[in-house]
Amino acid sequence: MASESGKLWGGRFVGTVDPIMEKFNASIAYDRHLWEVDVQGSRGYSRGLEKAGLLTKAEMDQILHGLDKVAEEWAQVTFKLSPNDEDIHTANERRLKELIGETAGKLHTGRSWNNQVVTDLRLWMRQTCSTLSGLLWELIRTMVDRAEAERDVLFPGYTHLQRAQPIRWSHWILSHAVALTRDSERLLEVRKRINVLPLGSGAIAGNPLGVDRELLRAELNFGAITLNSMDATSERDFVAEFLFWASLCMTHLSRMAEDLILYCTKEFSLVQLSDAYSTGSSLMPQKKNPDSLELIRSKAGRVFGREDKEAVFEVSDTMSAVLQVATGVISTLQIHRENMGQALSPDMLATDLAYYLVRKGMPFRQAHEASGKAVFMAETKGVALNQLSLQELQTISPLFSGDVSCVWDYGHSVEQYGALGGTARSSVDWQIRQVRALLQAQQA
Amino acid sequence: MASESGKLWGGRFVGTVDPIMEKFNASIAYDRHLWEVDVQGSRGYSRGLEKAGLLTKAEMDQILHGLDKVAEEWAQVTFKLSPNDEDIHTANERRLKELIGETAGKLHTGRSWNNQVVTDLRLWMRQTCSTLSGLLWELIRTMVDRAEAERDVLFPGYTHLQRAQPIRWSHWILSHAVALTRDSERLLEVRKRINVLPLGSGAIAGNPLGVDRELLRAELNFGAITLNSMDATSERDFVAEFLFWASLCMTHLSRMAEDLILYCTKEFSLVQLSDAYSTGSSLMPQKKNPDSLELIRSKAGRVFGREDKEAVFEVSDTMSAVLQVATGVISTLQIHRENMGQALSPDMLATDLAYYLVRKGMPFRQAHEASGKAVFMAETKGVALNQLSLQELQTISPLFSGDVSCVWDYGHSVEQYGALGGTARSSVDWQIRQVRALLQAQQA
Amino acid sequence: MASESGKLWGGRFVGTVDPIMEKFNASIAYDRHLWEVDVQGSRGYSRGLEKAGLLTKAEMDQILHGLDKVAEEWAQVTFKLSPNDEDIHTANERRLKELIGETAGKLHTGRSWNNQVVTDLRLWMRQTCSTLSGLLWELIRTMVDRAEAERDVLFPGYTHLQRAQPIRWSHWILSHAVALTRDSERLLEVRKRINVLPLGSGAIAGNPLGVDRELLRAELNFGAITLNSMDATSERDFVAEFLFWASLCMTHLSRMAEDLILYCTKEFSLVQLSDAYSTGSSLMPQKKNPDSLELIRSKAGRVFGREDKEAVFEVSDTMSAVLQVATGVISTLQIHRENMGQALSPDMLATDLAYYLVRKGMPFRQAHEASGKAVFMAETKGVALNQLSLQELQTISPLFSGDVSCVWDYGHSVEQYGALGGTARSSVDWQIRQVRALLQAQQA
Amino acid sequence: MASESGKLWGGRFVGTVDPIMEKFNASIAYDRHLWEVDVQGSRGYSRGLEKAGLLTKAEMDQILHGLDKVAEEWAQVTFKLSPNDEDIHTANERRLKELIGETAGKLHTGRSWNNQVVTDLRLWMRQTCSTLSGLLWELIRTMVDRAEAERDVLFPGYTHLQRAQPIRWSHWILSHAVALTRDSERLLEVRKRINVLPLGSGAIAGNPLGVDRELLRAELNFGAITLNSMDATSERDFVAEFLFWASLCMTHLSRMAEDLILYCTKEFSLVQLSDAYSTGSSLMPQKKNPDSLELIRSKAGRVFGREDKEAVFEVSDTMSAVLQVATGVISTLQIHRENMGQALSPDMLATDLAYYLVRKGMPFRQAHEASGKAVFMAETKGVALNQLSLQELQTISPLFSGDVSCVWDYGHSVEQYGALGGTARSSVDWQIRQVRALLQAQQA
Repeated sequence: MASESGKLWGGRFVGTVDPIMEKFNASIAYDRHLWEVDVQGSRGYSRGLEKAGLLTKAEMDQILHGLDKVAEEWAQVTFKLSPNDEDIHTANERRLKELIGETAGKLHTGRSWNNQVVTDLRLWMRQTCSTLSGLLWELIRTMVDRAEAERDVLFPGYTHLQRAQPIRWSHWILSHAVALTRDSERLLEVRKRINVLPLGSGAIAGNPLGVDRELLRAELNFGAITLNSMDATSERDFVAEFLFWASLCMTHLSRMAEDLILYCTKEFSLVQLSDAYSTGSSLMPQKKNPDSLELIRSKAGRVFGREDKEAVFEVSDTMSAVLQVATGVISTLQIHRENMGQALSPDMLATDLAYYLVRKGMPFRQAHEASGKAVFMAETKGVALNQLSLQELQTISPLFSGDVSCVWDYGHSVEQYGALGGTARSSVDWQIRQVRALLQAQQA
Repeated sequence: MASESGKLWGGRFVGTVDPIMEKFNASIAYDRHLWEVDVQGSRGYSRGLEKAGLLTKAEMDQILHGLDKVAEEWAQVTFKLSPNDEDIHTANERRLKELIGETAGKLHTGRSWNNQVVTDLRLWMRQTCSTLSGLLWELIRTMVDRAEAERDVLFPGYTHLQRAQPIRWSHWILSHAVALTRDSERLLEVRKRINVLPLGSGAIAGNPLGVDRELLRAELNFGAITLNSMDATSERDFVAEFLFWASLCMTHLSRMAEDLILYCTKEFSLVQLSDAYSTGSSLMPQKKNPDSLELIRSKAGRVFGREDKEAVFEVSDTMSAVLQVATGVISTLQIHRENMGQALSPDMLATDLAYYLVRKGMPFRQAHEASGKAVFMAETKGVALNQLSLQELQTISPLFSGDVSCVWDYGHSVEQYGALGGTARSSVDWQIRQVRALLQAQQA
Repeated sequence: MASESGKLWGGRFVGTVDPIMEKFNASIAYDRHLWEVDVQGSRGYSRGLEKAGLLTKAEMDQILHGLDKVAEEWAQVTFKLSPNDEDIHTANERRLKELIGETAGKLHTGRSWNNQVVTDLRLWMRQTCSTLSGLLWELIRTMVDRAEAERDVLFPGYTHLQRAQPIRWSHWILSHAVALTRDSERLLEVRKRINVLPLGSGAIAGNPLGVDRELLRAELNFGAITLNSMDATSERDFVAEFLFWASLCMTHLSRMAEDLILYCTKEFSLVQLSDAYSTGSSLMPQKKNPDSLELIRSKAGRVFGREDKEAVFEVSDTMSAVLQVATGVISTLQIHRENMGQALSPDMLATDLAYYLVRKGMPFRQAHEASGKAVFMAETKGVALNQLSLQELQTISPLFSGDVSCVWDYGHSVEQYGALGGTARSSVDWQIRQVRALLQAQQA
Repeated sequence: MASESGKLWGGRFVGTVDPIMEKFNASIAYDRHLWEVDVQGSRGYSRGLEKAGLLTKAEMDQILHGLDKVAEEWAQVTFKLSPNDEDIHTANERRLKELIGETAGKLHTGRSWNNQVVTDLRLWMRQTCSTLSGLLWELIRTMVDRAEAERDVLFPGYTHLQRAQPIRWSHWILSHAVALTRDSERLLEVRKRINVLPLGSGAIAGNPLGVDRELLRAELNFGAITLNSMDATSERDFVAEFLFWASLCMTHLSRMAEDLILYCTKEFSLVQLSDAYSTGSSLMPQKKNPDSLELIRSKAGRVFGREDKEAVFEVSDTMSAVLQVATGVISTLQIHRENMGQALSPDMLATDLAYYLVRKGMPFRQAHEASGKAVFMAETKGVALNQLSLQELQTISPLFSGDVSCVWDYGHSVEQYGALGGTARSSVDWQIRQVRALLQAQQA
């Protein structure tokens, strides 16, 4: 590659490069996200060079001043890319040289391109993790507030999409909020591993010019420095961890979205999505589609599989949008309290009927069998489970007596589940306190 | 969503949409690739509407004329997107309405948005498959030409990265070319399934207005029509098939690249990459890195995992660049004939030594054991395998006699492999003819 | 590795192998599926060796006889594995040697282990593809029969899980059957590429001993031979293709299962799953879970990601079970005709209302808007869409007149969709004929 | 499903189950790993039931005694599975009932099958994490010991497989050991989240019978209890986390294996693999293949993609074998010190040549260009870089003087990299101390 082209690694090359190859190799299209952290990293590095005696104070000031100018151009959208700018790093250094002359060439002393890239990426992702943490907390807080406000609404808990047991609506909200608290915890752990400085590792052997890496760390406010220069420039564990974090978090949001898509069908009619999060059909005038929920669900598939810088930018944007849309959906959702109540049916108390027998001393396996027989008897007779007469129940087990009628009360049913984590009011309150305490601890 | 916003499905909505949600839902950023096929599809559909009596001849002409104008604006880069244009389809129809007025509203009669999208996508991918087929043929042809020209160069065949047997350099080239012929065959199959027209399927129930789907098929030059209207608008098998095709093809190119990366290390020194496909290091002045090959290898990971429209565009671009870069690499690669010859060593003829004994009547398993003993004897004595004396060999088996010296000839070794598919000159020539014939057949 | 251990590649090794390493390397646990094809491949190869003069007729007969014995032992489950049997191929050859002595050692002449493995795998997969084709045809036939029998049942077509348009129940069945016909077509293509013989390619250079590969092909009944010996032993495209085929097919079955899971919820109550394909809950006596459908859905995830021999066996078993369970589910499913009818509601005819105006000359986009306004008016007034009075409709458009009452007939609605692929009775009949014709053509 | 079959959820079913469906649903083949933790979990739960008054002391003792017997049968391999045992949990309870009669039926009181499964899985994975931590520490310790012992061996550091800079062999070892310390840290975090007790959550609503979950936690020695009963039984984040941990760890081992595969080729000849970790070829007698390394590399692909219980067992076994094989490989590997030294070449000091000019005041970018010119001059003249005369160098820059000869010393070169993390002896010693300290801290 001809040296007169101004490419930064041109000395020994004599051929010219296939233009498709050049485009193939260029990342400028997506890594312009990094302009700010690239300037930030270079500011820190030039201070390290000055301390090591590789820049004079005057040279450092000249460079810092030039970098301010570069940042200003980006901020004011006046920065002009040149066709030879392969990436944000070459673009910024090329511009710096135009602004301050040959001194710019000293900034890269002992710093490899790979080392610069990974430092910038860690700076950027550290900031992104903080932003996403905030959005995630906002979503969890919205959910907990809602759970607290609607604690007394009962509705069917489903397993396998079949009605299973009566639960509180808040219990459902909290089941999703609790999952998100784990995402929040994991994000802090990922951030901790991102917050380790690789700068000062050169290409592979390290830095031979007396740069003080602890000083660089303090300058750029990192928590620690990397241990080995070869590992430092090549490892991308933190990218894989971030993408995995995103995929797990999206899985949780996706499951919540899937439940809500179902709950707002005509057939379930348990909740109603705000128009702000719905769309229509270009053909069918009556349609109101839960597009926000479907998009949340479909985005889950987008965060898997790649492990590169481009994926980080895309996934960050996706997560940011998804968390905000989810917060909007949850805070504007209307619930149909009446339908929720009507969706409860006596057969959902079959477990309670078994427990009734257990409390009278029957082993659970037998009680389960007996209650199953009652369900079958009711189905066969075409009546609801609570409409079997005491005589009929007694043909199944003599342990049934008049007090069995107490079983047929949904409110009484949920109040039984007082063990920690259950759907009784006291337990739901306990969950709300636990999640709030977690949020507070994580924000500390 | 307020109808005055001009959204196409606005009648029943009254709220406003969360702006994050709008951005979240918009695909205009990447689907502008589709402008040309969208116009093409609409032209075909308006002809179908006219035949069905839903447009007058004059209305059709007005629409066709408007569509010409839209296409012209795209071609001349004067088309202006409005902030409400969610995707290419709404953009084009919005512009058509501005150009020709209310008649534009008749174009969507009986056509759902989903049906339009999938038709456009099939039109676009049909064209893309043809383009990629051409590039793939060009690459295979380059490889076969090179294989023919360099038929007489021998070098080590490797398994497990260990030297295995002497083979022709052309045999290595053809092993990769043959794999690519399967990709070429598969691409034709995928194209065949893409070339099926879904237009005229409405949203799910079909088209109720007498549109003649066979006429649409002929108009848009498709091979067949889809069978079921629900399946037609929702299925994306052809997208998954195309992405799978790309991933297999990339796997093949990636393996070839991996071999070449190794062959151009200092340690192997078998080939030399053109400067046009190499890059340097920003830190180490002596470096010349095989970046083109590494990019080919790394792109393989990019084509997996997603199954959406955006992936199709990205993967198409990647495949197009990769095939051209690979063609460039192969056609400019220099081989180091001398190093290739020197890399052959007598222990690579240990299999031939076993065959020597087989030809004298020893069962292969015993012959393999005997030859292994010879290898061990040579290693222990610190000599090359061909420097063991006849006496020494005879301590291993009395079947060795003076004619064993004929084994130690690399040219003779490769010429043995005359069975079809082997590395003998005649067999390599047969392979070249077979691949050429395949290419011709596929282009027919 | 000490040669006295009886390992087949022992001559030059002197250390002993770490036992964890041995276990790590052994595949015998899962590749015993291959015993039959391994014997079959060896029979073919010994015939090839005899023709090439590398075995006498007597030796060949001795080997064939020994292989018969080996096969018999496997068939009668009396074959005893030895701890040194790393895989099925070494096991069979070890046993052959015990049965017929040193002549067994001639069977591997010019055949590498890799070449033997890939030949066996292709033989096995060819048979598997035929079996799976049969099961898939059986499923499609069951679906088409059912579609034909229940052509006159209408129910809601859903998009985004919202009620969209009235369609025939058969139209839904056929939408899934049509997707499966593509899988059937693809499976035949995969089988065609599996049915190519790699035997006679040695390790990498080919076969040097005069084996006639065309004779081997005829002997083992393959469609063609591989072109290049290096490619022949290493390529596993056909494995990736088979696994991709399985993943697409599972995606289709998974979507059908997902629909049915929903349709058999209490809330939808459109179909009822046979007890033979349901399970209960160990805790809740009233539960009847659609486990068969959930398993079909969950198995979809199992067929992705790996590309090895073990995956092939596992995926084949999965596909075989899934196709049979799906056939069972479909053939025993009960539909609730009455509920299906009741699930249809007038707002699902909003598209028809728009078409009514289109037929009176209004451009579709305006008609869509007008119909949307009618939906909104009905919602606001709290009445069904078909209960708006003519006067009310005329406030939206003067084009409404008395004949609008004809719109409110579901049977009339579906009969409109007479374009090929639509949900009209004639079109559904056409689909049934098309799918039946495809099945017949593929079985030819 | 007929209740007489003895299935545990049989009361309401009347049909019989398709046998393929039964096999499809059964997990007994792979979940027998869980026998021990299933007994352990049931022991804990029966204590909880006794405290809640749901079992008498005598019933609890009877159950505990029965469970001891079940465990004894498993331990002595005398436990007999019955065809109706779908999974380990039903098998154990079925056997318990045979041993102690109807009282066994009380053990499941208030415990759902899902809740039992997830508790068992967490118990099992907690133990597995501890075992794998130990194996991982052993590997890291082996690597650090070796790094310490061979600190003074220099060899080429490679980037893009091209020789880059001289480094210490220990620096390479430590680059991989440092990556593994992150895996070790992550595994502890995963274990922390596994160590949370879900027991006492029932099916979805919670436990209604007064079971004290804190008592269960203490009984089974968990770190915390789950917060929400719905989330508790359904979430499998910890499985996904464990599999992700394994995939990252395998990626690291895979990269190390890839380097070593290359270093033990004939062409590189830098290290030699022990025979205990090598295998031969069935065809080519001279081959010695690095199969252990190739298996480590290939296993990386096996740990992705699935998220089920079966994957956990398989991945655990893989990780256990891989970590032990890797430890064996590293501890038995021989290095070829002489070849390592000879692989260093003067052009690898081109960066040092640039630094020489930097130290004389030239900006790095210019110095890089000047050194690149020197490399090109040497290549053109066909001499080594250190054989250019001072006069020749001075035509490139007048800053070159007699002291440039000091650049051409590999030992001096590596000693420059004294910044923390670099390849100087002092820095390598620092790395060794850091990794040892980490290991000690993690084991605390």
